[in-house]
Amino acid sequence: MNDTIATAIDPETRVTHHDHEALRLWLRLLACTMLVERHIKARLRARFRVSLPRFDLMAQLERAPEGLRMSELSRRLMVSGGNVTGHVDQLVAEGFVERRDVPGDRRASAVALTPRGREAFLAMAREHEAWIVELTAGLPAGDRAKLHQLLGRFKQSLPMP
Amino acid sequence: MNDTIATAIDPETRVTHHDHEALRLWLRLLACTMLVERHIKARLRARFRVSLPRFDLMAQLERAPEGLRMSELSRRLMVSGGNVTGHVDQLVAEGFVERRDVPGDRRASAVALTPRGREAFLAMAREHEAWIVELTAGLPAGDRAKLHQLLGRFKQSLPMP
Repeated sequence: MNDTIATAIDPETRVTHHDHEALRLWLRLLACTMLVERHIKARLRARFRVSLPRFDLMAQLERAPEGLRMSELSRRLMVSGGNVTGHVDQLVAEGFVERRDVPGDRRASAVALTPRGREAFLAMAREHEAWIVELTAGLPAGDRAKLHQLLGRFKQSLPMP
Repeated sequence: MNDTIATAIDPETRVTHHDHEALRLWLRLLACTMLVERHIKARLRARFRVSLPRFDLMAQLERAPEGLRMSELSRRLMVSGGNVTGHVDQLVAEGFVERRDVPGDRRASAVALTPRGREAFLAMAREHEAWIVELTAGLPAGDRAKLHQLLGRFKQSLPMP
């Protein structure tokens, strides 16, 4: 185990003996998320030379075959960061995304995956899912199911932002 | 419930009926993390006019009273993003952080919290902890303990990056 890397990506190292159990829970949740995200980022880069914001952007477009306005796309991606316009321009230049008119609004435009972009995304999404299956396989199936259930309760219990 | 906001910060909306349970678990974990982070970001901004990267930076320095080299600080913050140098310059200008010589290495310098910076951070950290207590209070204590335990098992089961 590489302790240098582990420290860099583990907010739980911040925990001290006098921290409240709620804080410990949060930092552990954050640690797990960051560790998985780190794996996914590295694999997307190594396998497809794609950044996570770009993958997330294509995932949003894949769910919206009718296309999304840039404002809507930016809103949906707000937490993933990254420069949406820059990513879109790049994807358009590569033929993965196209701009479309918005019926009834001549000044607006929407973006959508091209057939080629959809194909490229689905290939990545299949591998992404296999990575997630692999990354969670160390936890017994019963624990995974229980964790899913508890996270669902936690999510339901959170106040809306 | 504001559906517009919920969509924007909830990667679980990406789940389709044919997704693997592992992917559902991951997207739910990510959703919980993002929702909590969203609350923390909004409160840090409203209460202290501080960004999350800045809070994380000060948290790292608080744990290292002897100071940290910029390279080490950047490494520890790599997942939090943000421009470390820019944040440090700003914190130095405000009197919260100071630059120090590194004994035995005349070309290197380290940064550390000033007493005032430490005081300011500890005041924020106390409220931050209270927010986390509040945000997790909707989940019964037994569920919180079980969730902490399962996340610990999950973290242990993850391959090192």
